[in-house]
Amino acid sequence: MWKSVAYFLNCRYIQSTVKTYHMENNSRRFFIGKTLKGLGAFALLQLPFTSSAAYILDNTFKTYTVEEVMQIILKEIPGAPFKQTVDTLKSGNKDMVVTGIVTTMFATITVIEQAAKLKANFIIAHEPTFYNHADDINFVTENSLVKKKQALLEKYGITLWRFHDDWHASKPDGIQYGFMKKMDWLPYFKSREEAVVLPALTLQNLVDQLKLKLGIEKLRIIGDLSQSCSRVSVLPGAWGGQNQMKILETVKPDVIIVGELQEWETAEYVRDARLSGSPISLIVLGHAVSEEPGMEYLVEWLKPKLPGLPITHIASGSPFKWV
Amino acid sequence: MWKSVAYFLNCRYIQSTVKTYHMENNSRRFFIGKTLKGLGAFALLQLPFTSSAAYILDNTFKTYTVEEVMQIILKEIPGAPFKQTVDTLKSGNKDMVVTGIVTTMFATITVIEQAAKLKANFIIAHEPTFYNHADDINFVTENSLVKKKQALLEKYGITLWRFHDDWHASKPDGIQYGFMKKMDWLPYFKSREEAVVLPALTLQNLVDQLKLKLGIEKLRIIGDLSQSCSRVSVLPGAWGGQNQMKILETVKPDVIIVGELQEWETAEYVRDARLSGSPISLIVLGHAVSEEPGMEYLVEWLKPKLPGLPITHIASGSPFKWV
Repeated sequence: MWKSVAYFLNCRYIQSTVKTYHMENNSRRFFIGKTLKGLGAFALLQLPFTSSAAYILDNTFKTYTVEEVMQIILKEIPGAPFKQTVDTLKSGNKDMVVTGIVTTMFATITVIEQAAKLKANFIIAHEPTFYNHADDINFVTENSLVKKKQALLEKYGITLWRFHDDWHASKPDGIQYGFMKKMDWLPYFKSREEAVVLPALTLQNLVDQLKLKLGIEKLRIIGDLSQSCSRVSVLPGAWGGQNQMKILETVKPDVIIVGELQEWETAEYVRDARLSGSPISLIVLGHAVSEEPGMEYLVEWLKPKLPGLPITHIASGSPFKWV
Repeated sequence: MWKSVAYFLNCRYIQSTVKTYHMENNSRRFFIGKTLKGLGAFALLQLPFTSSAAYILDNTFKTYTVEEVMQIILKEIPGAPFKQTVDTLKSGNKDMVVTGIVTTMFATITVIEQAAKLKANFIIAHEPTFYNHADDINFVTENSLVKKKQALLEKYGITLWRFHDDWHASKPDGIQYGFMKKMDWLPYFKSREEAVVLPALTLQNLVDQLKLKLGIEKLRIIGDLSQSCSRVSVLPGAWGGQNQMKILETVKPDVIIVGELQEWETAEYVRDARLSGSPISLIVLGHAVSEEPGMEYLVEWLKPKLPGLPITHIASGSPFKWV
């Protein structure tokens, strides 16, 4: 069973002590919000002071259920809600009152622990929680790790929503817009499929910019680092070989930047293209780091829509070391 | 139209000059093999001397058509020929007389050029030629690179066979056996799904061995390099997240070695597994370099079955640079 916000705020201490606390802390606007009336105040006060705690106890702001947050988001997405989508709740429930939101690429165990520390009980993650696109918990039967992760989410009373198809369907695509913003390429950004046309630079310069601005330690390329480039197709995440190669065939960029790829598809296409005389280059950033700026940007996009609600981005980061 | 071996050997020079050449080169056994009687001799002699040229002109050995080579191979594979398989001819035809075989992982444009230089007109490649698993030439419509590659294969009169499902179905799996042989791990190798149990070593030692013996410049890991390991699951190529995670759940190795993966599947599983306290490590070698030893081993496996036929392994190598 998933617990409501009352559980999350550890409600057993509530009844007797709220009044006492108010007497001692009257300089802070510590009143219980209308939705939470009678719930959670003292428990919060036993814990490190967080923006989530302040929010829940501050009645100048409206509180929201998960469903209300989802509705506020989805009404901004053309065509949403979609009938077929992976953007479902992976834990928790839609009636839970939200104490704070964390956005991330992958809701790793570290991200879940950090959200709990922030007293944020709603995680919005771009990618799967249970290691497959559909988040099928039986993708591998008797998956012990899935069970551990479910137990952890339940322990902290966290509701977890995947926000993938919807964010990509936003106009412009929220992931791509966040990427362009992070790279300071918004002046060159037109649409999802079009290449950005940068002032000419070498492939080495481009790689250096990407590493610096996206905080990437190492990446893979196919190309000549001294080669000049300008027209850059930006495909964060995993667009799949068919879409990546379609961009290469139709847009004909100097460079294609991808999050990840299947090596027997796009990588071999680019290798052969270069061997046949086409000076196309490829940069593989890594999936997590390529789309993280889009989930960071989501905070900025959400804040005006949910005044007062603490919204934090936690980067899941690259899982890999390079040796 | 695909040309026969006569075209490959550039037959227009044949008629008038064979006799002259024989007079000048009687120290070498330069006679035309029974299948090639009257074809190709002088043309070969205009070109650098190769083992393929010698083979075709040496009547002490039987010659083979592509179909005959395929039959000789497939009768060794349990269950082959398979009704549904990607192991089809990607260029050329089965009636062509084979002048030499090249084995490789990816028949890149470089590999095709090198095969042509060796006068080998039959390439056996483990992975796709046209950048998708089914080698669907319309995977991306009007794919200009597919057309260039087809034209190149036609120019050289090369028949190209994919040898993927069959080689994996061999007992033992030819790719995995080749990997174990290259790593000097045959004494520890039991079966495709079982972990090899190595004398305990650190993850750093294991990485160093892999890089040295497989000729790998850089690779990705998830794990602690100082950690001791012994039970190693070896999954060259792209087994897919479901199979990789099934191995992790059932075999519970210290380390899983893969060729490539989908980052939202196995990589995130291993990251979370470690965060939850399971000391599993992951090594990602790269697809091409992980299975190349299996295609190198194919030469040794084939030679006794096709006496005299020149068989060469050409490594396609990693397509990537690490920056």
